[in-house]
Amino acid sequence: MTKVSEYTAVFCGGDMRMLYAAEKISERPGLRAYYSGFEKAAFVPKNVKMLTDADFKADYLILPMVCTLDGETVSAPLSEKPIPISEALSLVKSGGIVFGGNIPKAVLSKIEEAGLLAADYYKNEELLIENAIPTAEGALAIAMEELPITIFGSKVLVTGYGRVAKTAAKTFSALGASVTVAARKYSDLAWAGFDGCKTEHISNLSSAVKGKDIIINSVPSVIFDKSVLKNTKGLIIDLASKPGGVDFEAAKELGSRVVWALSLPGKTAPVTAGYIIARTITNILSEQV
Amino acid sequence: MTKVSEYTAVFCGGDMRMLYAAEKISERPGLRAYYSGFEKAAFVPKNVKMLTDADFKADYLILPMVCTLDGETVSAPLSEKPIPISEALSLVKSGGIVFGGNIPKAVLSKIEEAGLLAADYYKNEELLIENAIPTAEGALAIAMEELPITIFGSKVLVTGYGRVAKTAAKTFSALGASVTVAARKYSDLAWAGFDGCKTEHISNLSSAVKGKDIIINSVPSVIFDKSVLKNTKGLIIDLASKPGGVDFEAAKELGSRVVWALSLPGKTAPVTAGYIIARTITNILSEQV
Amino acid sequence: MTKVSEYTAVFCGGDMRMLYAAEKISERPGLRAYYSGFEKAAFVPKNVKMLTDADFKADYLILPMVCTLDGETVSAPLSEKPIPISEALSLVKSGGIVFGGNIPKAVLSKIEEAGLLAADYYKNEELLIENAIPTAEGALAIAMEELPITIFGSKVLVTGYGRVAKTAAKTFSALGASVTVAARKYSDLAWAGFDGCKTEHISNLSSAVKGKDIIINSVPSVIFDKSVLKNTKGLIIDLASKPGGVDFEAAKELGSRVVWALSLPGKTAPVTAGYIIARTITNILSEQV
Amino acid sequence: MTKVSEYTAVFCGGDMRMLYAAEKISERPGLRAYYSGFEKAAFVPKNVKMLTDADFKADYLILPMVCTLDGETVSAPLSEKPIPISEALSLVKSGGIVFGGNIPKAVLSKIEEAGLLAADYYKNEELLIENAIPTAEGALAIAMEELPITIFGSKVLVTGYGRVAKTAAKTFSALGASVTVAARKYSDLAWAGFDGCKTEHISNLSSAVKGKDIIINSVPSVIFDKSVLKNTKGLIIDLASKPGGVDFEAAKELGSRVVWALSLPGKTAPVTAGYIIARTITNILSEQV
Repeated sequence: MTKVSEYTAVFCGGDMRMLYAAEKISERPGLRAYYSGFEKAAFVPKNVKMLTDADFKADYLILPMVCTLDGETVSAPLSEKPIPISEALSLVKSGGIVFGGNIPKAVLSKIEEAGLLAADYYKNEELLIENAIPTAEGALAIAMEELPITIFGSKVLVTGYGRVAKTAAKTFSALGASVTVAARKYSDLAWAGFDGCKTEHISNLSSAVKGKDIIINSVPSVIFDKSVLKNTKGLIIDLASKPGGVDFEAAKELGSRVVWALSLPGKTAPVTAGYIIARTITNILSEQV
Repeated sequence: MTKVSEYTAVFCGGDMRMLYAAEKISERPGLRAYYSGFEKAAFVPKNVKMLTDADFKADYLILPMVCTLDGETVSAPLSEKPIPISEALSLVKSGGIVFGGNIPKAVLSKIEEAGLLAADYYKNEELLIENAIPTAEGALAIAMEELPITIFGSKVLVTGYGRVAKTAAKTFSALGASVTVAARKYSDLAWAGFDGCKTEHISNLSSAVKGKDIIINSVPSVIFDKSVLKNTKGLIIDLASKPGGVDFEAAKELGSRVVWALSLPGKTAPVTAGYIIARTITNILSEQV
Repeated sequence: MTKVSEYTAVFCGGDMRMLYAAEKISERPGLRAYYSGFEKAAFVPKNVKMLTDADFKADYLILPMVCTLDGETVSAPLSEKPIPISEALSLVKSGGIVFGGNIPKAVLSKIEEAGLLAADYYKNEELLIENAIPTAEGALAIAMEELPITIFGSKVLVTGYGRVAKTAAKTFSALGASVTVAARKYSDLAWAGFDGCKTEHISNLSSAVKGKDIIINSVPSVIFDKSVLKNTKGLIIDLASKPGGVDFEAAKELGSRVVWALSLPGKTAPVTAGYIIARTITNILSEQV
Repeated sequence: MTKVSEYTAVFCGGDMRMLYAAEKISERPGLRAYYSGFEKAAFVPKNVKMLTDADFKADYLILPMVCTLDGETVSAPLSEKPIPISEALSLVKSGGIVFGGNIPKAVLSKIEEAGLLAADYYKNEELLIENAIPTAEGALAIAMEELPITIFGSKVLVTGYGRVAKTAAKTFSALGASVTVAARKYSDLAWAGFDGCKTEHISNLSSAVKGKDIIINSVPSVIFDKSVLKNTKGLIIDLASKPGGVDFEAAKELGSRVVWALSLPGKTAPVTAGYIIARTITNILSEQV
């Protein structure tokens, strides 16, 4: 039998879901996975080794979903010490691939200079769609924990109607909430109506928030300003990436109840979220070959 | 204008939902509500007064959903001191009504001897149906908190197909879980199939548990014995009233993961659960008149 | 190898679904099926023989879902000549079983006198549940054919909340209709509410019919009398067995639009309906052994 | 009181839904509707007059959803004589608007030359979304009429995952069919999976058709060629606009069961379809002002 040529991947930085991704991807024949920067993690993935050899050179470097917050170091909340991006890149063979999410331009340049290829998770639409599910379930878990009422019979407002909003609307509707969607595009409102939701143009947000128990924002611009917050008695769950959709100062002043919910997939369902990442990497590799 | 004749109700013992029930019922014209035995509760219900007058005589005494655990005192986790049932009964006018859940025979005798009427919540089918919703949502919240996977795509086994089981099956199915129902009656299995579930006769429980991520038990007899638990890798959420459905000793020995989840409505959704109780009392009173 | 002892069944009378039932049941090892009284049927079932031998004696006689209309002859719309019940019974061996639906007392006596056993389909709850599905789909097909509007967005009233009503409510809701359930029992209304329907006590039928596009009746007593019909502009689909739920004279006088829809499973989905009957017979036989 | 300035619209050609659209739009204050080319229609719309004055000049000309089949005459199946497009255009005031669906380039030129504006329904995304519902329900009605089985439990294949395919998949799933979606884009397959469907890449169509009872095609290119049709035993409902998705000759040769289902909204639900057109015209007019 011919030997299967072996590839190596180093998972560097990120939260628990990256360890589950590592474990999952190591099931792939011919791929050997290592991890680095997870000293604080309680979980030890099966069939994945901690990287100890400083001179190691891998075919693939796997950075987290938000690969860096400061542009200098890998985002690595479970690492005991900061990991400079340049140090991480030095782990890769010439011609190797660096996977990561939201890779900034400056980092892309470094990758290119180092003779490596970059693959950004967020360019993969399937991942975005699949990630919407743990995000919506995370919002559901927050609503259940924070409110003393059942989701069944509750009144929910969802802003926007992109992937995450659509999934959140479906999730709450499925449990018997009365869901209103406020969006800007009339075609989105037509779809929302077809999906069984009430609809309201986003320009009426100020009145749409009235009487709602739960408001789920997916719009990444500050649409919940003082005038809107004044009418908002329900719990706001803000799923939008920075800067989010809520005027922080006004919310504080008015005593609005807001949960800023970022990186929900990694918190709610790290195993599922890890498997989604593993599948995405696998798909990207299949397409490359 | 004629004066509306006024009735008085004392809410005595129970958890938070009884206070919400008191608040809700006090909206009823001609009804004045009091509470007693809630010294440890942080919440103060609107329009409901704490009972201070020892010689007070009410038309209605409202005991909690499980009115007593020991047969001697009112179940009153938020009270600073035990409340003997006889003391509680002395608060009611001759001919008045005592509401409570699962009222034991001995207590029924005392009520009769005191010249009072008894009304048991659990004889009211609507309450049982409505309570199934916060119970199922509570099971969902537990599953989301305990497991690192999404409900979407998870494999769930529900035992039995009564009110709670049916509601739980629907709740998890609605979120995209693959739900199997294991029940004894073939007609229940026919309904479960119609409701979109896979089905398995309960006699095959030992094999039905295999590969399931979540097992929700609604059967109040020990069907999860050692032989079944050996095949069970998933999280068991036991919703059955005492004695529950899981062999405690065997579960401990085998390291099975079990959550005994009692009184979920009061924990998950005390406001909704309180409103359900208030609506039940109102219905019983309407039927009496 | 031991010879499998062979049983014989004669399917006598009924509509197309009985032929599909015969075809399905003939797949059972050790069972040989014959048919009689289907001269007008275009379809010839596979592996089932037409009965020609007058002296034949079978183990099982399979009569249709409504076994007789007049108490004297087998209900046999596809037969060229009437089949007296006594003639049909003479086809069975002593100790054999007669299957049929709604077997009248007088026929039961004849069966007993002949030394045979009787098995009524309608005593089998699974069959009733499973038959509710082709019935509900039949009602849907009628509504789609009769009305120039989409089911999505239509306003539907369902009376009762038994098997057929529940299934019809679910079917129309699933397609985006707004469904109201009018029933007598409060527990039924509680379930209907939980199933996402609006609810109305049946005593308010007169007002509940207003504004509805489609009314589906499952109550087998004349609740649609003149006073109710006066308010009814929508299409009434009457699924109730005789005498049905609609005052025929009043409906004619007022020009109400009514479809009396009986035996829908056999009309809408004879194959599925036949398989349900075959499965029921198989289950009854399994329980007997 | 000031007089509301009055606009006039002539509905010319098309099927029944155009008359319902005329009736609906005539409810709009300040708009007077006329119709022309419906001599064969049994239905007389309320508040809409038949056009008799040859010298009439309208503000708006409302042509049907498929405005012309031959490029020369208005598509007018209910007219007793052909209506040349030039004759129709001569009914409009200079500066007036011509509404129509799929207006060919040559006709657009004529409209422009005549000093008129053109508005194509198909550029309005909401109409396309809303039309998907009567289309999907039409496909459902066809399946129910053609097949002797229930939709519940049937096996359905849907090709593509655009508006119509998505709506059809949801419609059949909602009734308990097992739906597989075969599409080309992986992101479409991800959505279909999230919507509860099984998925298959369209490149595997030949095997995906196996065992399916119903196949719904929405892809407007001949993907059901001889090799695919050989494996297809189920009923094909072709919803794709010309040339459709089925090799006509091969289907005939192989005896495949195909329903070419065009203009379903007008056939299944002319009232709803007419209201959708009326709403679209209203929206276009609102945006113009």
